[in-house]
Parts: sequence; C-alpha cells; structure tokens
Amino acid sequence: MTLRIVIIGANAAGAKAAAKAKRMNPEASITVIDRGSFISYGACGIPYFVSDTVCDEKELMSTPVGVVRDPAFFWKVKGVEVLTETEAVAIDRKNRRVELKTSAGAGNSFIEYDKLILATGSFPVIPPLAGCELPGIITVKSIEDAIILKEQAISGKRACVIGAGLIGLETVEALSMRGMHVTLVEMQAQILPGVLDLEMARMLEQHIREKGVEVVTSCCVSGFGGNGQVEGVITDHGTFAADLVVLAIGARPNVGLARTSGLFIGETGAIAVDSNLRTSDPDIYACGDCCETTNLVTGAKIYAPLGSTANKQGRVAGINAAGGEDTFAGVLGTAILKVFDFSAGKTGLTEVAARAAGYQVETVLSPAPDRAHFYPEAKPIALKLVADKATGRLLGLQAVGPGAADKRIDAAATAISFRATADQISHLDLAYAPPFSAAMDNLIVAADILKNKLNGHARGISPAEVKQMMDDEDDFILLDVRSPAEHAAVRIAGAKLVPLGVLREKLDTLPKDKEIIAFCKISLRGYEAQKILNAAGFDKVRFMDGGILTWPYALEK
Amino acid sequence: MTLRIVIIGANAAGAKAAAKAKRMNPEASITVIDRGSFISYGACGIPYFVSDTVCDEKELMSTPVGVVRDPAFFWKVKGVEVLTETEAVAIDRKNRRVELKTSAGAGNSFIEYDKLILATGSFPVIPPLAGCELPGIITVKSIEDAIILKEQAISGKRACVIGAGLIGLETVEALSMRGMHVTLVEMQAQILPGVLDLEMARMLEQHIREKGVEVVTSCCVSGFGGNGQVEGVITDHGTFAADLVVLAIGARPNVGLARTSGLFIGETGAIAVDSNLRTSDPDIYACGDCCETTNLVTGAKIYAPLGSTANKQGRVAGINAAGGEDTFAGVLGTAILKVFDFSAGKTGLTEVAARAAGYQVETVLSPAPDRAHFYPEAKPIALKLVADKATGRLLGLQAVGPGAADKRIDAAATAISFRATADQISHLDLAYAPPFSAAMDNLIVAADILKNKLNGHARGISPAEVKQMMDDEDDFILLDVRSPAEHAAVRIAGAKLVPLGVLREKLDTLPKDKEIIAFCKISLRGYEAQKILNAAGFDKVRFMDGGILTWPYALEK
Repeated sequence: MTLRIVIIGANAAGAKAAAKAKRMNPEASITVIDRGSFISYGACGIPYFVSDTVCDEKELMSTPVGVVRDPAFFWKVKGVEVLTETEAVAIDRKNRRVELKTSAGAGNSFIEYDKLILATGSFPVIPPLAGCELPGIITVKSIEDAIILKEQAISGKRACVIGAGLIGLETVEALSMRGMHVTLVEMQAQILPGVLDLEMARMLEQHIREKGVEVVTSCCVSGFGGNGQVEGVITDHGTFAADLVVLAIGARPNVGLARTSGLFIGETGAIAVDSNLRTSDPDIYACGDCCETTNLVTGAKIYAPLGSTANKQGRVAGINAAGGEDTFAGVLGTAILKVFDFSAGKTGLTEVAARAAGYQVETVLSPAPDRAHFYPEAKPIALKLVADKATGRLLGLQAVGPGAADKRIDAAATAISFRATADQISHLDLAYAPPFSAAMDNLIVAADILKNKLNGHARGISPAEVKQMMDDEDDFILLDVRSPAEHAAVRIAGAKLVPLGVLREKLDTLPKDKEIIAFCKISLRGYEAQKILNAAGFDKVRFMDGGILTWPYALEK
Repeated sequence: MTLRIVIIGANAAGAKAAAKAKRMNPEASITVIDRGSFISYGACGIPYFVSDTVCDEKELMSTPVGVVRDPAFFWKVKGVEVLTETEAVAIDRKNRRVELKTSAGAGNSFIEYDKLILATGSFPVIPPLAGCELPGIITVKSIEDAIILKEQAISGKRACVIGAGLIGLETVEALSMRGMHVTLVEMQAQILPGVLDLEMARMLEQHIREKGVEVVTSCCVSGFGGNGQVEGVITDHGTFAADLVVLAIGARPNVGLARTSGLFIGETGAIAVDSNLRTSDPDIYACGDCCETTNLVTGAKIYAPLGSTANKQGRVAGINAAGGEDTFAGVLGTAILKVFDFSAGKTGLTEVAARAAGYQVETVLSPAPDRAHFYPEAKPIALKLVADKATGRLLGLQAVGPGAADKRIDAAATAISFRATADQISHLDLAYAPPFSAAMDNLIVAADILKNKLNGHARGISPAEVKQMMDDEDDFILLDVRSPAEHAAVRIAGAKLVPLGVLREKLDTLPKDKEIIAFCKISLRGYEAQKILNAAGFDKVRFMDGGILTWPYALEK
C-alpha cells in the first residue's frame, strides 16, 4: 500500500516537509494543499523586495539557481503534487480525509491521508481599531502584501509603521530606503521588546533616529483616520499623518482548522506538538508557524514563529510522517535583523526574561571593535551577556552595532545549546586573524568580564542604575578615566576627569568615604581604575558597565 | 612579603600575564623583561602594515584608543615595570633569580622572583641553505622585519614567498597589494597543508592564481643566488628571480632558556606545561608561543602558536602566578586567514588529520551562498565537515570562499568544544535573517547532509575519487543534472546532461547496470537525483560531494 501523506500549507515548513518526506520514502504519494497562488516563497525577504534590494518577487520564490518553485517544479523535481488555490476546510480525523474547497468554486472534494502534516502558518495581527479596514493599511506577510507595499512606497510620502518588532523595523528601513518619511510607533517603552533589553534597544533606536526616522515609543494607537484612504494614525501622542500604514504588531498561529478538528491547542495559542512534532492525533503532525515549541533555556512552551525554525521543523515532520524518526527539541529564541548600518539580535534570554524566569542574573555590557582595532574595517559591536549567578551558565546574549553581530550570536547560541559556562566560553578556540576579530574575540572578552564579576573581582553597575543615582542626586563621584582628548570630544555631565595614566599619582584628589563609579569608553579602563583604587584602599568603587559607548542617555559634546 | 613575579617576554602572552597578575594581586611587584625595544605589538598585524592597510607601525603597538603600549604606559596604567633591551640569560632556579644582560653592555645583574612566567615566544625557521644570509631575505616576525619588508615591497619588483602557510599567504597578499610580482613556493603538494584538505586548498589556490600570483607547489628550495643582495631562489623547479624573498616556513618555540634551566621540554619541542600552565618547576609558568598545548579533539600534545591562544594563556598564567586558579585545557587548532577576496580556515581536524588519528571518518563538501540567495551581498562559501562515523561527532570543519567563513568556523569550534554530533548541529538555533544567512544556515545544511550520509540515505563520493575513476577509465556515467543553461556555461568533460526537472521522464536513457555519479552545482540536486534513481530501481548511484563548485580540476567553458 502506498503511504499517502497530505500536507496543508506550501510555504517554508510545508514545502520542506513534502520534499523531505519524498526523499525519505520515494514510494509515498505526497500532496500539498495551499489556498494561495504563490507557494514556497521567502516571506522573510519581503522587506528587501519592498526596498528594491531584491527587484523581482520571483527571486523570493526561486531556488538558488533561479528556478521558480511552482507546482510544476515540485512535481518534476520533487515528485510532490501541489494543489494551489485550494483550501482545506475540514479534517475528518475518523476517516482520515481532508475536505477541500477550490477557489474555482466547484463542489468540495476530499483527499484521504495516512499521515497529515499541518503547516498552516500564521497571520498578522490586525487590531480591532476604528478605520483599520481603510485602504493604505497593509501587513507584511504575503507576496500580495509585498507587491502592494512596493507600489505604495512612494518617495516623499509619509509612512507610519506600527510595531517596533523585527518585521516592523525591517519595514522601516525598506520604506526609508524608498525615500518615504517614516514614523515608527511602538506601544512599549522601547523598540524590539522581548529581543533587546532597554539599554541595548536605546543604542539601536538612536541609530534609527539618526537615519531620519521618527521613533515614538510608549504610544498607543486608538484608530485610523481617512476618507476612502488612510490619512492618519490616531494615538495618545496625537495623530500622525500617513499616506501608508504598515501593521507589524505580531503574528498569531493559524489554528482554526486544528481547533475545529479537535486537536490540542497549547496555552500559547498554537498547536501543541511533542518532540516528534506529533499533535494530539498520532497521525497528524504540525510544523512551522502554526505550532508551538519549547524554549530550550527555560523549558517553557513558547510561540516563536521564524523561517529558520519552520525549515528545520518541516524536515523533522517530513521524516516522521514518512516513517522515519527525528526530533525537534526546541529553540533558543534566536533573532537578528539589519536596520540601516546596524545589526541587532539575541539568543537565549534577555535580562528581563531571565529575571522573569526566576534566575539570579549577572550581566555584562561589553562594546568593542569586531576586528583587530588597527584593521581599517573594524566596526564596534556592543554585547550584553546574561548569566545565571548560581552556575555561571550563559543564559543569553544580545548584540547591537555596526559590527558583525551575527557571528557572536551564532557562537553564543551554540554555547548556550550545550549549557556552557562563562569559563568555558572564555576558553573557546575561536577563529582569529586581524580581518576577523581581535586576538581576544568580543565574546571571549565579555566572558572574561563575566568571570571577573562572578568571582567578585570586578564590580559593575549598569548605566541605568548610575542614571537613577544621578536623578536621585546621590552623593557619589562619577570618575571618567579616559584621556583628556576623549573627554573633550564627548562626556557625561558632572563626571570628574582623572585619566587612568595619572590615576595612581592623583589618588589624593579622591575621597575614600564616597562611592566612586569609574568609566571609560568601553569599561576596560574603568575596571582597571576599580582595581587601582581598591588596591589603594578605596572600598566603595565600581565601574560602569559598557562605558560611555553604551550610555544610552544624553551626552555633552 | 610582597609577591615578586618576573615575566620574560613582553609581547602578547607576557604582557597579558603581567597586566592580569597585577589586577589579581595589586600588592605584587611585577617586572617584565624583554630583549627587544618594541613591546606588546600585534605581530599578526604585520602583513597589514606591509600592505599599507595599516599605515603606521605604532598602530600595532597601541591600545584601541590610540595609546602606545610602551614601558611608561605599562608603569602608569598597569602598575607593571617593563625592562626593554634586557636579555634574560639564565635562570638560577635554586635561588629563584634570573640573570639579566642589558644591551647597554654593563655587567650582568640579577632579579629575584617568587613566581616566574616564561613568555619567550617563537622564532621563524631559517633553513640551513646556501645564501640564506643574503640581504633581501626576510622573515615576518618582528616590528623590525615589518619595517624592512615595507621598505622593500616596491611596486613592479619581484618577490618570492617561501611557505604557503598562514603567514606566507598573508604576506603574498600584502606584497601583491603593493604591486609586486609574487611567486609562492611550497614544498608540499598543496597550499595551507595542515589547515585545509587538498580539495579545499585547490579552491583557494585557484583564487590566488587568478589574482596574478604564481603558485608553485611540491617545490623544494635548495638555495639562494645573488651578489650582495638576493637575486633568485634556486629550486628543483628551476630558479625564480626575486628582488625580495620572504621565509615563512614555520615557527619554532624559543626554549633555549627553559632548556638550559633544566625545565622539561615536550616531544613537540616546546616547553611542557600542565593545565595550569605550570612547567616542571612549580614556581615557573610558561604561556604563549614558547609552550606546547593539547589538541582538544585527539588529546595529543601539539605545538600551535597563535596570538589568540597566547592572550588566553597569558591570562591563565598571570592568574595562577598571582595566587589564583585558572586552567587552559587546550585548543582545537582553529585558524583563519583572508587572502584577496577569499577567507579560508578550519577548526578541529582535517580529514587527513582525522584519519591519521585513527578515526573512521565521514565527510561532507557543501558549497552555498552565505546569506539568503536572493540577497544581493550573498557570496558563496564552501564548507567541509569531517565527522567520526562511529559517533556522528563533528571532528572538524574547513571553510573556503568569498563568503563569511569565520562565522561558520566559530559556531563549529564552539560545537566541537562540546563534542556535538551532526544531529545536534543540525538543530542549532542560529541567527537568521536574509542579510545574514539562508533560512537553513550553511552549517545546518552541511550537518543535514552529514546526517543523511551517516544514516545511509545519501551516498556521496569525493571529487578526488571521481577524478581517479576518470583517470582509470572506469565504466561509469557522470550525470550532470543541472539546467541546460548552467551546462552551457561550464561543464565537466564527459559528463552526460539530464536536467533534474526531466530526470523522472528520461529514466530509460540511463542503464541500470552501470554506476552512476550524479552532480549539480553544489550537490543538493545531485542528491535528489540519487534519490529519484534509487526509487526507480537504480542501485549503483552516488552523488559527487560539493558538485561542480568544489570540483578542483579542469572544466570546459
């Protein structure tokens, strides 16, 4: 008997599952159902299509050698049948068949399965706000969205992007590159909530502002104005004029079919699956944006839709449905994006998430050039490490800056997967030559600082805590140990300058009874100052994490 | 009693050890002895100084904020005394003192120590060949070398670089950038022996040739000709005219002082140390290029001098000498370099090294774009994975190409440190967005291929084996499953074209009794072809690893 595998959804996860199942079990008959007309497209590429970085939408639907992945391709090359413009309207689990409705409008039909894979994806959240049906309000999900967005991205006109998550920020860049005046509105107090902690987000936000984008955080949208076409976004910060509005406030799993079929839906709202990606029905698998997964650090179930995860899960579901055995244990919540000249991303837990999960955390803020500092292409990158105080294990890493963030995130993601400690990370044999890193890679330097903090040698304080002390008018000395030239260029108001090179000679200019907080450009000299002062009998000394480079507040120039 | 720490050698390892020891133990008196006049310089930066990528040699000796790391800097900032132009001529271990000779020529003096750290570094190998003392024959080690090399790198003149290791290749690039006609001579049959396997080295070699460098492998140098100045390199391939000769045939540990002091020297010829970097004398540590270390994959003692290792070891030696406790377990032999538009590097074992160490290996050759293929800045990178067949553990990774090799090497180095299997690597949650990687990162794709091979689904054959079969005139079909357009552009002579899209229809054009070896551009369609043919009853089918992109032999265009 031929094994009949039916897959609902022909994008990342579904297409991958189909191809892999066929390779695993060439005898199997494999049919993929998709209600859309475009299949197997790289939705993650949409912002780059909108910005004209990618010219033709067909490039998003092609193989690396330029063959369009259409139903004919899937049949000829993969041996898989794809039915487009066909909607799966019901699953008859008892008789193991799926009811299909074609857009052609003929009567419904049925397709029988032995194994069914749900790859129904996600849909963008549309807020229930007045006016949100107005033309000119668009989401970023489908090729159809992409084509409309590209048409309406007209230079000189005004766009308002709502939601400062990954897709929102990528779209901000795309529309700015097309010459639009862009306003970014975010409900939370920072951009990239959940991806970056506040001080890291501030660095990115500053860069985006410098590129001419108006960024409005802590801003609630209450509706949209316009007459036959959107003209403005109404918020508690006033109305922002807009010729084009992009809704990027998140995605929800497409679980209607699973729910009406009686499959178990997890607390996250996505389809519950075990580590084989099997749903509560042993003959039905789910993969990609429609199912939930596990956070490998906390063990909690999470909803974290992402193209890379969808591809990996599609492979696992395809193997298992075809009679093989593979598992997908979960994710670290790794995320990255490019916005203008900056990269920003994370893996594992942010400080906020780690504290919420009950960890006692130690953190490090470490900005440094991403290559040998004398190498002309070196660019700064700020890392934030979040570790478990009890075990020294790295829980998460964030990276922001013009330098190579992705490399450090990938190494950290690998390390976190193996529950690496700060000590293990500090000894990693990473690839070194001046065009690629400093002799001590940023990740290793940060891990060394973490070790120094965990063992009590280094005593740090976060920029936010220092700012709080300033606002509270606490009596302390903020000690700038940079050079006079660095101080002349940019400085924190109220800080006292004693360059590190003369600190040993000028100890008598500092009081021993007051708290001293030392800082430099990146915190290494600040730490040296702490050690010098400690050795000279100053007990109440800390250094400010990350130095002036990660100070997210006003500076004097 | 003040702890007296004496350190011999003020470069990477010694300077790091000194600064770290002082921070660990601010009461300690720390003296660093160096026979040179330049200290704490980035020797790895010399090729970039020679190429004018770095203009001033002072940049190599400066901190990231531009302060020159001279003895005054070390005293004022680090609290460490540095004595330059001072040679340690003997260690009196019984009385724990070092005999010093200054270049000023006054009588010798002694300095007492409680703990001694040897950071005496390495010296470049000078072959015992006739004429090798001729002016114009230079090594790449010291700032003095760098200044001479930069002066003599004259556009239009001829340079011969001897040794195609990391430093040799970096110097080839530097001299070419200065407009010299460069010949690279290597004794072994490939460039970067020990770093890359043959087929990976061939890809890099081809790139270097395309940049106008004459590459001569399997070539033995027997002497140098010239009258008062080098004029030619005499080899078994004839004499190569040269106005400048660079010797880059390796480095040896500087162990003279350790040896005469009776310290144990390992079989590698470098100073033997335990995991605390303690020598056979418990009061003497060694770190950096003068000591041996452990290969973390095989457990064998190796000599692997590198700036990144020296910095990490300096930190460990400094901590331990100052009364703390830290360990350095070993290295993976990670290495990387940039040459023209290519990066090349590795971590862990090459296939050759893995077989020599007794492993049964499985390998994967996987070339692919380093970002989403539709992203305009995507550049190809070829990965080679070497795994242990018995356990599925990754033993090593090599990367060559214009794409981001360093990122994949760092992730693999981290994975190998934790003894990761192909399966674990295939599920890593690496950072994905189109500007940074494909949805399935190169490393994950390669790990998936490795899994397919390890479990018997994918049957590969290396390009070298295919070439051997061709040379032996074996009766087999080399099946090109690319598109007609790709075939028209470039092809392997004698291959039969059946594009993958029509393969299912043209099965009757292929014989079932002959061996078939399928290939495409990168091997993924080749693997699909294997699966299609297997399903149709063809038993003797393999695909060629890496496809035409990693075919290191002649192609028809």
